[in-house]
Amino acid sequence: MVQVNDNYRKLPQNYLFSEVARRVRSYREANPDADIISLGIGDVTRPLCNSVIEAMSAAVAEMGRAETFRGYAPDRGYDFLIDAIRTNDYLSRGIRVDSDEIFVNDGAKSALGHFCDILGGNNKVGICDPVYPVYIDTNVMDGRGGVLTSDGKWSDIVYIDSPAENGFIPQIPLQVPDIIYICSPNNPTGTALNGSQLKAWVDYAAEHGSLILFDAAYEAFVRTPGVPRSIYEIEGARNVAVEFRSFSKTAGFTGVRCGYTVVPKELKGRDSEGEVSLNALWNRHQSTKFNGTAYIVQRAAEAVYSPQGKKETALTVDYYMRNADTIRKGLEFAGFTVYGGVDAPYIWLKTPCGLSSWEFFDRLLDECRVVGTPGVGFGPSGEGYFRLTAFGDYDNVCRAVERIKEWKI
Amino acid sequence: MVQVNDNYRKLPQNYLFSEVARRVRSYREANPDADIISLGIGDVTRPLCNSVIEAMSAAVAEMGRAETFRGYAPDRGYDFLIDAIRTNDYLSRGIRVDSDEIFVNDGAKSALGHFCDILGGNNKVGICDPVYPVYIDTNVMDGRGGVLTSDGKWSDIVYIDSPAENGFIPQIPLQVPDIIYICSPNNPTGTALNGSQLKAWVDYAAEHGSLILFDAAYEAFVRTPGVPRSIYEIEGARNVAVEFRSFSKTAGFTGVRCGYTVVPKELKGRDSEGEVSLNALWNRHQSTKFNGTAYIVQRAAEAVYSPQGKKETALTVDYYMRNADTIRKGLEFAGFTVYGGVDAPYIWLKTPCGLSSWEFFDRLLDECRVVGTPGVGFGPSGEGYFRLTAFGDYDNVCRAVERIKEWKI
Repeated sequence: MVQVNDNYRKLPQNYLFSEVARRVRSYREANPDADIISLGIGDVTRPLCNSVIEAMSAAVAEMGRAETFRGYAPDRGYDFLIDAIRTNDYLSRGIRVDSDEIFVNDGAKSALGHFCDILGGNNKVGICDPVYPVYIDTNVMDGRGGVLTSDGKWSDIVYIDSPAENGFIPQIPLQVPDIIYICSPNNPTGTALNGSQLKAWVDYAAEHGSLILFDAAYEAFVRTPGVPRSIYEIEGARNVAVEFRSFSKTAGFTGVRCGYTVVPKELKGRDSEGEVSLNALWNRHQSTKFNGTAYIVQRAAEAVYSPQGKKETALTVDYYMRNADTIRKGLEFAGFTVYGGVDAPYIWLKTPCGLSSWEFFDRLLDECRVVGTPGVGFGPSGEGYFRLTAFGDYDNVCRAVERIKEWKI
Repeated sequence: MVQVNDNYRKLPQNYLFSEVARRVRSYREANPDADIISLGIGDVTRPLCNSVIEAMSAAVAEMGRAETFRGYAPDRGYDFLIDAIRTNDYLSRGIRVDSDEIFVNDGAKSALGHFCDILGGNNKVGICDPVYPVYIDTNVMDGRGGVLTSDGKWSDIVYIDSPAENGFIPQIPLQVPDIIYICSPNNPTGTALNGSQLKAWVDYAAEHGSLILFDAAYEAFVRTPGVPRSIYEIEGARNVAVEFRSFSKTAGFTGVRCGYTVVPKELKGRDSEGEVSLNALWNRHQSTKFNGTAYIVQRAAEAVYSPQGKKETALTVDYYMRNADTIRKGLEFAGFTVYGGVDAPYIWLKTPCGLSSWEFFDRLLDECRVVGTPGVGFGPSGEGYFRLTAFGDYDNVCRAVERIKEWKI
């Protein structure tokens, strides 16, 4: 009989969001008339903007005519999109990124999930706690997790503490990781690192020869002056960091699927014979295991960078940030201790009365008919915290906040 | 410094199609006015059919309205597409496939490239020779290849001979593989296994506890009665086989990106504690490392199964098969020994005059301005063979064939 990857049996049965969905489904079955408002999964709700719709409609029409039909896209993406990314996200901000350092893909999750395939199994992985659970899960699948211990931590992972008293800023760990995941603005805490905080990590990685995997999926939500939107705003970052970007939250592409990864040519890793380029390895990975992003999708992404597209997507981001502000202020008014929601679409709250994250989940669902995400799902340090997202409809957000304000917990 | 996956250094520098593209580019630079006709890379050229265009246009419009906007798709795919696949590709042919056995994805290459992530590193892999090079490359990346020896073979791979004298039918190997890749209709030879030939493999896998990874990307081109389009037409296949399907060639989706994988619940593998379901493992892989296929793309795929969509896509397949017939007959007339082109869009020819595959490539390009694909790129047994594809424009195909007929090689 075929042997399976033995690491999979180490994974807990349920992926966080599947478990949330299961409990909501079960509540809905028991309470079919309940008016449930979801501030749970980080999925967008606003429609695609006009510029994107027009670009996609035109691209669909092109695919229906022999003269303009397009087959396989280039593995790394079409030049028109790579140029738009390079010009708008980097050059215009004074950041150097070369065209052959940009890899267009079907979203940050696939890229983050597979990037470590090109890295060795014995690298020590450092992961902020709490954070997006895909980093841990994919490394466990690849054999870098060790075993899950009774405190909810994986034995081989270096947990990077991000304590509440320091505003959830990740602190330099005692043990040096070879690979460091940083998500800023952070999912779930909403914390965004400022320039000097991020520079400390770039310098640390340079000093220790570590590689930073920088997840910038929420950069569009940064409002505070001086908070970097790209790690390459930091001097020296080209030597130590890969950057993952996505149109999912920036332009509402969760159902369209487009993102990109930047792998600077300076980045090296070591194999048994010497130093090799990570850019070359990732290119090999993508050309072998990926067949390009749909033409229609790439035209949609390009439209996000048109003058009109920029205005329209900014309005949508503003809409969500008004939600974030409403949730944050409403919860503060109700007496909760609240973080995030300023440079991120996530609001992170301390559960009151010593409730565990899942206890709070169940009570919030049962008593307010509001769905959120238990903080413990983002790592053991998330226990006793809870995440609400700003991606809902404004009226629903207001209704949910009113219910929470009136809640006698 | 971060360690890289040491297996990558074992891979030859150039992926087959990149090398073909490089040589064509270099020829074009030296001969800017040359009228080059490509019968090389297996990419479609006919536009998407009307049913698909209409479905996509409607879906794009839906994404632009708040009431009908869709965010993240379900990891496994929308029910509307899963139902259409199940009904049309399986139930209507008397084959049982359950809804939760179908995983919609962004194309067969991603699924084939990553499926072995859920399998152990020590499985012995059996691969037909010649065949689509992604099977070998992905297994080498995962450490199952061993080393590349001077005969062009990987030391740990079981090569499944498919000799010309047996019509390129894969022959049972001496050593038993744990994982067996079968591509039928085959890329590049065009050979399609009939029911009894495929049954021999299903029985062999059942007897030895092997897992078959069945690549059916070209099933739409099967014309010969009795040639299975799905491995599940064979009794017992649910116990031994995963099937990979794609809309790329069936409906011209190479630039749209949609396919699906069928993982029957009967399929088991062994981990250190016992038997586990491959369906559950693949579900875990996809929910962790993939974020669903675009809504618009899934609506496009659904339209392929509408009565009108079926008619329209069948016409396109007919168009390509007329090309295949033209190439096959033309080359036979010119005195070449030719295979395939009957149940597949690929024509496989023996290079004349003892030319190597790459020598033939260079001469065909230089003397006929026709691009094809060197057979040796599909495995060591492909040396001395050459692949032409039927995906071109009919007039160009005729012109290419005329040039080859007049060619004094």
